[in-house]
Amino acid sequence: MTQDLLLKNVRLWGAAATDILIRDGRIEIIALGQTAEAAHVEDCANGILLPGLIEAHTHLDKTLWGMGWRPHQAGPLLIDKIETERRLKTDWNIDPARQSKRQALLSLSHGTTAIRSHVDVDTEIGLKGIEGVLATKQDLADIIDIEIVAFPQSGVMTRPGTLELMKEAMNAGAHVVGGLDPCSIDRDPKGQLDAIFRLAEQTGKPVDIHLHEPGELGAFSMDLIIEQTRALGMRGNVTISHAFCLGMPDRSRAMDLIEQLAKEQISIATVATASRPVPMAEDLRRAGVTLCAGSDGIRDTWGPYGNADMLERAMLLGLRNNFRTDPDVEHALWCCSYGGAKVMKLPDYGLDIGCIADLVLVEAESVTHAVVSRPQRKLVIKRGKVAARDGVTLIRVPDAHA
Amino acid sequence: MTQDLLLKNVRLWGAAATDILIRDGRIEIIALGQTAEAAHVEDCANGILLPGLIEAHTHLDKTLWGMGWRPHQAGPLLIDKIETERRLKTDWNIDPARQSKRQALLSLSHGTTAIRSHVDVDTEIGLKGIEGVLATKQDLADIIDIEIVAFPQSGVMTRPGTLELMKEAMNAGAHVVGGLDPCSIDRDPKGQLDAIFRLAEQTGKPVDIHLHEPGELGAFSMDLIIEQTRALGMRGNVTISHAFCLGMPDRSRAMDLIEQLAKEQISIATVATASRPVPMAEDLRRAGVTLCAGSDGIRDTWGPYGNADMLERAMLLGLRNNFRTDPDVEHALWCCSYGGAKVMKLPDYGLDIGCIADLVLVEAESVTHAVVSRPQRKLVIKRGKVAARDGVTLIRVPDAHA
Repeated sequence: MTQDLLLKNVRLWGAAATDILIRDGRIEIIALGQTAEAAHVEDCANGILLPGLIEAHTHLDKTLWGMGWRPHQAGPLLIDKIETERRLKTDWNIDPARQSKRQALLSLSHGTTAIRSHVDVDTEIGLKGIEGVLATKQDLADIIDIEIVAFPQSGVMTRPGTLELMKEAMNAGAHVVGGLDPCSIDRDPKGQLDAIFRLAEQTGKPVDIHLHEPGELGAFSMDLIIEQTRALGMRGNVTISHAFCLGMPDRSRAMDLIEQLAKEQISIATVATASRPVPMAEDLRRAGVTLCAGSDGIRDTWGPYGNADMLERAMLLGLRNNFRTDPDVEHALWCCSYGGAKVMKLPDYGLDIGCIADLVLVEAESVTHAVVSRPQRKLVIKRGKVAARDGVTLIRVPDAHA
Repeated sequence: MTQDLLLKNVRLWGAAATDILIRDGRIEIIALGQTAEAAHVEDCANGILLPGLIEAHTHLDKTLWGMGWRPHQAGPLLIDKIETERRLKTDWNIDPARQSKRQALLSLSHGTTAIRSHVDVDTEIGLKGIEGVLATKQDLADIIDIEIVAFPQSGVMTRPGTLELMKEAMNAGAHVVGGLDPCSIDRDPKGQLDAIFRLAEQTGKPVDIHLHEPGELGAFSMDLIIEQTRALGMRGNVTISHAFCLGMPDRSRAMDLIEQLAKEQISIATVATASRPVPMAEDLRRAGVTLCAGSDGIRDTWGPYGNADMLERAMLLGLRNNFRTDPDVEHALWCCSYGGAKVMKLPDYGLDIGCIADLVLVEAESVTHAVVSRPQRKLVIKRGKVAARDGVTLIRVPDAHA
């Protein structure tokens, strides 16, 4: 009883005001005018209560957040960024444990209660990234959920030894098998996809593959991913991140791909990149393909942008998709909450009775208003306990400039 | 002497710290360690001083800011938005004087010190929009500069009587002759362009034309605009807003157009729309075409987005153009400051000795850091006087929900 939390005068996803009793970390009662003797009572002043936001695609291990401003160094190509990053990780001492903790707490301050993070595995850094993010996951276990993708940022086939490290990463506790541009980076699409799908099969874990390859090249890789998913019976356990090829000019080819994705229940993770073709949210929604969203790298060696605010990501997703009506803008936020939860298979997620009380409270007139204005988060609640208030986490970040 | 303002410990556009003495509304001395007996001294704590931001494309007369949240009503087509807006202006009592004042003060709170606003002129609203924004311009003359484009939102040729109203608008004090999609909206490109360029010639005023038309249609209209500019000797006095056609797939056609724009010193105004092809900033910069930027409509019947923050617009411009390095991101901010000032021909704009002291102070480690983090504006200074502090204008907005 002492842990009960009563939220008075809240509007669930913008609906009429009600009160919510949270007990044992779950939503137990939703009814106006509750007078239960809860240990903690919060007057929510007619604020909008949303389910905890879901950061479904980021890179916790390599943000520069809190390390002082560092001008962008990398050249324009994808490979420039990969090479530059590998060098700067050492030169700048980008410590995965420290940095992942900083970013996770930043996310929490903005109302994110679960994160899927790709974490680099390569023959230089080995498992240091995985170990660092696992340490953060454990340290912050009470306030944020972190799922780790073992991510071969520097390629699998082009860097012998990487696959073995990925196996070790999975044994060490990584949750998802990652992949990356099997043609353009690895130069051996069959080789990479055979290897990572085999690893997924052996470990019984899902797959999440970065696919930046544009146009027909990306479509070819996507075909191969769909075939692997079908052949191994991994329906519902595969995510493709970015999937720029779905923005290709040949719309009928893209729609055919989307139909196949729907059949295999392959989900898409997007960043709503403004400078590239991207999967269109409406195409995916119509076909029944789940779209989730993420910040991608936040202020890292890949680029200076990002603040881990998934309400802002919903706005960027809305702008990218030309969403203007309330249902459309709310769908953008759905991708940044329910969509991510579905992809991460978070149990009992949402705003219904019985759901785990991962919640975020904002002052706004409507859900769309919250997305476009991105107000400070009044409360962030994790499993029924207040984890952040007025944009500040109760646990503080490691010292700045370390 | 009593009006002197000494800004201590500021970094001009991110350079080494110095002090700035402002006298008679202008920057008089830039030198470290000044001890002048200024009437007002501000310790700027090593903050970055930028020239006042320039909102070069917006619609002050029709924002819904401060009117309570109103869900988006219009259908997907451009013409749906035009028709819906004309209806709602009356139904919702969108008063141009009140609303333009609200938005202008919102802009000022974010460090904008000059605005070019398109203001609707049509046979229903007549000159009410122009009169309302002129009233705001006068009311706020000490704290923000407003330039008015007489904008035929509902078409010129398709709505007889509009051209006469535009003439009246120019006589009433509008500064720029507007135009809109001469093919797709007006169905008579020669007719519209002849009419508005004639009006510009007669009044000796510049032209700023909305051109949403995509691909070859927009390119055709742009050809006609370039021809008119050349024929009438209006070099350096024409702006094309949006110019989506410059994002057309045929890059050589687009580059040919850009070369012609450069020859006629026609500038481009962009919103950095994420969902449409847009002019690429780098193409324009290389060719010597000035690019300025704006918020477009802010929370109006066209869409729910926008907050009038030109630092955020610089971020969106950077994201849209895939700008990552400091020089590139700083160019995005250049477009939102110097670019706009150039298009509006603001005299003595900038951070040099002798410049008019329109300034904004932010806490950030570098200019790029300011763009990506968009911190609250510590000070906004208009002609040497503090006009806003810590994100709050000294003059307050009209009552909310009026």
